[in-house]
Order: sequence, then C-alpha cells, then structure tokens
Amino acid sequence: MSNDSLQNLIKRLGKLPGLGPRSAQRAALALIKNKERDMLPLARALYDVAHYYKPCVQCNNLTELDKCLICNDPRRDKTRLCVVEDVSDLWAMERAGVFQGKYFVLGGNLNIMDGRGPTELGIEKLISYVTSISALYNACEIILATSATVEGQTTAHYIAERLEELSVTISRLAHGVPVGGELNYLDDGTLALAMKARTPLG
Amino acid sequence: MSNDSLQNLIKRLGKLPGLGPRSAQRAALALIKNKERDMLPLARALYDVAHYYKPCVQCNNLTELDKCLICNDPRRDKTRLCVVEDVSDLWAMERAGVFQGKYFVLGGNLNIMDGRGPTELGIEKLISYVTSISALYNACEIILATSATVEGQTTAHYIAERLEELSVTISRLAHGVPVGGELNYLDDGTLALAMKARTPLG
Repeated sequence: MSNDSLQNLIKRLGKLPGLGPRSAQRAALALIKNKERDMLPLARALYDVAHYYKPCVQCNNLTELDKCLICNDPRRDKTRLCVVEDVSDLWAMERAGVFQGKYFVLGGNLNIMDGRGPTELGIEKLISYVTSISALYNACEIILATSATVEGQTTAHYIAERLEELSVTISRLAHGVPVGGELNYLDDGTLALAMKARTPLG
Repeated sequence: MSNDSLQNLIKRLGKLPGLGPRSAQRAALALIKNKERDMLPLARALYDVAHYYKPCVQCNNLTELDKCLICNDPRRDKTRLCVVEDVSDLWAMERAGVFQGKYFVLGGNLNIMDGRGPTELGIEKLISYVTSISALYNACEIILATSATVEGQTTAHYIAERLEELSVTISRLAHGVPVGGELNYLDDGTLALAMKARTPLG
C-alpha cells in the first residue's frame, strides 16, 4: 500500500518512547502534510544535535562545547556535586532551581542483568572528579540523587562505598510524602520512611 | 541549562501528535544515546520521505511514483471508488482488506470554520475522476467513506449532490454496533441507527 522509505520512517518514529505504531503513522502523515514547515526542520534539528552534541568532558551533561554551561559557570558552587542518573534528572533539578552546585551524570544505574557495571557507568571518572575537588577544597558535599529504585539505591550505596576514604560529606535526597500527595495513595515504604524521618513542627 | 539546537529538537519533537513536551525530552535523550543507530537514520528517513513522496496524480494517495501502487495495480476493480478523508483511512481499509477497488483521498473534510471549502479539498479533481470512470464503464459505484462526524457527513452529502447527475451508484458505509462493542457504552445516536438498520437473522 505504501513504499519502503515511508514504512521505514514510520518504523523509526514508532521506536521513540511514547509513540506506538499507530501514533507513528499519524505523526508521519502530519509531517508529510507540512514538509517545509515541520518535516525538513525536524530532520535538520536531528542532524544538528547528532553532530554538535556530546557529553561534557567533566560531568557528562550534554553540550555543544567541551565543557557544559554548568561546569563553565563561575557562579556555581564548586564544593557541591550532585550525582544523577540521567541528563533528564539534571534538567528536573535545574527546572526546580533548588541546587546551585555542579552535577555529574552517570548515564544510568548499576544493573548487572542489563550489563551495566561500574565500568559502563564511568564510575572511575566520577571518583577522579571527586578526588580532584576534595584536594582543592576543604569541605565538599556529594549528593547522591539517583532514583529511589532498587537499582538507583544500589548505585548510590556502591558510590558511597567507593568515596568512603575521601574526606567528603556524602548525602542523599530525603524520602517522604510528595507535596500534594495523599497518604491514602502512598505506598507503605514511603510512608514508613516519612514517619521515621518526621521533623519537629515549627 | 542546555543550548539552542537541542531545545529546538525537543520543541519540534513535542509538536508530533502523541508527544508532549516531557515525552519529547525523553525521546530526544533516547535518540542522542544512539546517534548512529537511531538518530541519524531517523533524520535520513525524514529527508527521504520529504523528498520522494508526493500525492498520486490520480487519487492523492502518497507515492514515490507519479501514480500510486493501488492506481497502477491492474487487478483492482476500476468500477468501484472509495472516497476517504485521509491517507490513514486508506491504510485502515487496506489493513482490513475488505475493498478491492480504487481510492480517492480528499485530504480532510469540509469545514468552513477552518477554511476548508470544496476548492481546498480538490472536489473538482474527484468529480472529473468520477466523470471519466462513468464514461468508461456502465455500472460504477462510489463509496463515500468519510468519517461519521458532522463534518464527514456534510462532506459526503456535498459530494453526493455534486455526483447526482452522473450515472453512478453512490453508497456509504453502514452505521451500527462495532464488533466487540458493548451496548452499555454505545452512544444513543449509534444505537438508534443500529436499531433502524437492523437485519433479519439467518
């Protein structure tokens, strides 16, 4: 019914997270309807990003330069390092605007089943980065902001162990009731941690 | 936090039907992780389709040639023409495999509010196509398979009126209970039409 390159496009669009085969068809047809306005600019944007973006040499954040904008920003606190799993986690932190230090992007979490060990995650790069910070500054803090999943917490524990001999403070994000969350819908694990870490009022 | 071409890509991905701003971020990051395997081939597929695909001169179906594969297929019934709104509707009919004739793709429906009149839909092209078929064959059938919406039915009525003077049979798809549909969840309009068009058992 239709030829190869269109089927190829639909197949490739359907691989994007969030798009299934049927919505990929819709997307392809919507693009074809506006070739000049939508389709060619999307193709060009893909080429541009593919050619110009690479991981920051220091923190693995995506950047068009050697060092990312955050690593290059002299106003950011060099003594605090927030370790996140993915660039999207870094974006979430920046959107919230709650952290003024620097980041390190692991690019995933430890998951032996999926073949992601310490080497794949570039843990050595993190260790040498932290070593260089702790040599320069007296009081450093490493915030392990990996996901609150089994793999994320395993990754945090592994990194904490590896950093033990360096004179750095290691912390992690608090667990608890999310703002706007109803207790009724919260899982038992979160409730237990929220109760354990309860804080005095006022 | 990140530079222009990446933001541009995310904005463009977020315009695809089915993807919002957050899932566009996820899609962009997933693509960057596999530049060679996913990102560049997707860009290439977009360029290919943009450059090689155009509407069939006869039926407006998408094609890499002048005439689409269906119009070129000598095994298909030339005396039956199914008029659909969109290429995706044509694909749906082909998937179901219930029609062996030819198609005509309108590219939308009549909607004066959105500025789509008979000229925008290329109704004249359809009329002259049907005129040429009816001159060649004695018994022709035009199946108006526009959507069962107000706009779709308006379009069907308009086309039926325009074709009145030609000696062709005009039909439309039956309304009724969808296969697997529960009466409980069906709207009153469909139920009324299904009751009115009830058929004798066996």
